[in-house]
Amino acid sequence: MAKNQKQIAISEFFEKNKHFLGFDSLQRSIITAVKEAVDNSLDACEEARILPDIRVKISKIDSKKDILELQTEDNGPGIPQKSIEKVFGQLLFGSRFHAIRQSRGQQGIGITGVVMYSQLTTGKPTHVLSKISNDDTAVSVNIGLDTRKNKAVKSDQTRIIWENDDLTRKEHGLRVTTRMKAKYQRGRQSVFQYLRMTSIVNPHADIMFTDPDGETYHWPRVTERLPSKVDAIKPHPHGIELGQLQRMCRESSDSRMTVFLRQNFSGVSMRAAKELCEAAELEITMKPKSLKPDDVRALLEAFQGEREVNGKAIKLLSPPTNCLSPIEEMLIKKGLSKTIDSKFVATMTRAPTVSHGNPFQVEVGLIFGEGMAADKHVEVLRFANRVPLMYQQGGCLLTKAIESVDWRQYGLEQAGVKGVPKGPAAILVHLASTNVQFTSEAKEALSDNEFVFEETRRAMLEMGRGLRKHLEKKKKMAKTR
Amino acid sequence: MAKNQKQIAISEFFEKNKHFLGFDSLQRSIITAVKEAVDNSLDACEEARILPDIRVKISKIDSKKDILELQTEDNGPGIPQKSIEKVFGQLLFGSRFHAIRQSRGQQGIGITGVVMYSQLTTGKPTHVLSKISNDDTAVSVNIGLDTRKNKAVKSDQTRIIWENDDLTRKEHGLRVTTRMKAKYQRGRQSVFQYLRMTSIVNPHADIMFTDPDGETYHWPRVTERLPSKVDAIKPHPHGIELGQLQRMCRESSDSRMTVFLRQNFSGVSMRAAKELCEAAELEITMKPKSLKPDDVRALLEAFQGEREVNGKAIKLLSPPTNCLSPIEEMLIKKGLSKTIDSKFVATMTRAPTVSHGNPFQVEVGLIFGEGMAADKHVEVLRFANRVPLMYQQGGCLLTKAIESVDWRQYGLEQAGVKGVPKGPAAILVHLASTNVQFTSEAKEALSDNEFVFEETRRAMLEMGRGLRKHLEKKKKMAKTR
Repeated sequence: MAKNQKQIAISEFFEKNKHFLGFDSLQRSIITAVKEAVDNSLDACEEARILPDIRVKISKIDSKKDILELQTEDNGPGIPQKSIEKVFGQLLFGSRFHAIRQSRGQQGIGITGVVMYSQLTTGKPTHVLSKISNDDTAVSVNIGLDTRKNKAVKSDQTRIIWENDDLTRKEHGLRVTTRMKAKYQRGRQSVFQYLRMTSIVNPHADIMFTDPDGETYHWPRVTERLPSKVDAIKPHPHGIELGQLQRMCRESSDSRMTVFLRQNFSGVSMRAAKELCEAAELEITMKPKSLKPDDVRALLEAFQGEREVNGKAIKLLSPPTNCLSPIEEMLIKKGLSKTIDSKFVATMTRAPTVSHGNPFQVEVGLIFGEGMAADKHVEVLRFANRVPLMYQQGGCLLTKAIESVDWRQYGLEQAGVKGVPKGPAAILVHLASTNVQFTSEAKEALSDNEFVFEETRRAMLEMGRGLRKHLEKKKKMAKTR
Repeated sequence: MAKNQKQIAISEFFEKNKHFLGFDSLQRSIITAVKEAVDNSLDACEEARILPDIRVKISKIDSKKDILELQTEDNGPGIPQKSIEKVFGQLLFGSRFHAIRQSRGQQGIGITGVVMYSQLTTGKPTHVLSKISNDDTAVSVNIGLDTRKNKAVKSDQTRIIWENDDLTRKEHGLRVTTRMKAKYQRGRQSVFQYLRMTSIVNPHADIMFTDPDGETYHWPRVTERLPSKVDAIKPHPHGIELGQLQRMCRESSDSRMTVFLRQNFSGVSMRAAKELCEAAELEITMKPKSLKPDDVRALLEAFQGEREVNGKAIKLLSPPTNCLSPIEEMLIKKGLSKTIDSKFVATMTRAPTVSHGNPFQVEVGLIFGEGMAADKHVEVLRFANRVPLMYQQGGCLLTKAIESVDWRQYGLEQAGVKGVPKGPAAILVHLASTNVQFTSEAKEALSDNEFVFEETRRAMLEMGRGLRKHLEKKKKMAKTR
């Protein structure tokens, strides 16, 4: 066991395990690449409060060897020259990892994974063109990856004037051009389907797609309203593990416990801070850094209501929910109607709630009508933080919640009392959360969580009742005719 | 996008995403911990050619707070003092990552993940007691993790005399004691089931388990024969990607192409090395380091048979298969009969084969008989490199191969022409491979691979024919009675 032991770079790890990142087949690799680029564009536009215009183009470079070129372009804020190499060429580098708020990207892996896969399969770097509004010109640079060191390799960096098609100057934006071994396909798991689903949950985005045959598809913006701005929040005491609290105390430079508790956590008022100290038998003037292991444990017990003051657990406020940005019912309706033509659309946005200190919110939509096949399973459209989930449907928490409902009560067919129902319908389900727990880095399925499951199930039941009413009304009308 | 960008340590990444490692629920966490410890013990014993004696004990420390203590002990070679902190306290540190051969562990994540989860949920370090035969005494040390730096934190290190229960001195071995927030449960997904399955595919191991109620279970060794020794092999030209080949050339200090090709790849004879150079239009005296991008591309094309000599692709030998260690039919039978009492047992070990330059081998077993429920789905026992896979059955390649067979032809019931069959049977399937591709770090399901799928399916068909014959014979005998 002890021979030849050595440290492996995170980039070597993911190069060998590229299937963790969604590069496990030629068909899927191009979808993954589009997904990572488009997610970044949407996140960047949302943070900069820009209505996104996104262009995606895929071309065949060498059909025999399955080499495709992907080009994505946005009108986002662009990336400053000095950050480009880190964003594209260094794994686990990012701004969103420690922030507690809803965002598409979070892990600092996505787009660097694309650069890595491109280099591995074609030997070529990825070209980045970036313009920020403060600069006169755009940066043009090729980015590769030194996988042994998890560092970017830059080449051919210049500054150029970036013009739009109409010869006006591009104010700000990003264009990424990359080649990779991949196969373009149509159907249920395709780039087309990914973008179509993206447009449903991002009704504020204008998306244009040109496929390898030169065919162009356009999903226009259906609202000028940007998703509400999300603020990062502090962790809530109910979501803290002992090891985490120990580290926070150790690294704290706060002068006293009350300051520490109020400034590092959400939901802790001055009064609650004092009571937490009292329950944990700590002086409010203590420095957090000086806490002994038993003190930290006592504080955690106070957090969790296991230590009380005057026979009562300390009352904490819920975490604020301005860290979430649901799509909202009206816009889900608009988004759904844009891509599926149908008679009956029901949507429902549940109130935000909290699991282990993490705020989350579930939204669902149901479309029912003639356009769809009556003898097949309903189409399930899964989303997390406005990103479509296209693989691992069976292993996903959201699917399990749909399957747990007895849909026959609501007018859909179902084999047995459980399972995805059959009928001319599509079910949409969206989880907005500060901490979406996926089953792997490829972010295709949500892992089990009883609170999210229960919320989703309830939303389904409520929506199901709406469907039943609709069907009863239809039946009545048919009789009276 | 550019604000607050920073590098995230791999340990911070996995602490936040601990569910990737199999710590997503309290029930599963204890199984994951047992799995990582036992896998390491079996790997270490196998490498040191020791027949493993493994002891696992789980105790309840605090039922109200769900704190369990896990202690595992083996008679393996032990770990030298200076390596302990890296093995237990540093993620992505390992000896098996770059080696191409069959092994249980590979990623350098497993046991460090356990130490991390323990510290996160209890604030406590993990205790390690290690004795190697060269030392007189054993090392006793507590290991924690500095997650900000991905470094171990050592404490209370001493050397002690380690005695067995009978007061003789322990010659060599390892004992790991760790506490964690977890729930012990029984049933299909349990520590008991994990160890039972482990004993089936490791018939050379003696495993003893004491559960939280003090109940002891024993799976004795059924063969004294250790699994055959596996040798690490070089990568095969058919499994190389362009980016990888570029790096190998760049980092090479070989003086000429023929040396480079013969020493860094398997399956390349002197003659093949010369022909590869000829096909790629490279001088055999060139230094690999001096190759231009187009040269490397040409070499890859020669590897893949796209460049020929005298109208023929260059003939390469298959990679050696002494990097694999199948269980073999007789021992699968013994292992299965040990845990399931039944009449008919069929097993089959396919010949080793190669996918993308990676040698692999499929083995299957089928048990049929009265002991099992006739109206339920057959029990599916999945294994990869002698490790049981207990979660994500539906999303696993091995399950998909079973489902693809029309089992009604072979005497089992099946709803439709596809799906897991029903009947009083259990199906075992084992993939031995130098590069098992899991869907995530938790190593619970295999991702898609058409070659492995086809091999598994063929093995099933062959075994199915055996079952049909058995059932026909039984029918005949019943008639003649």
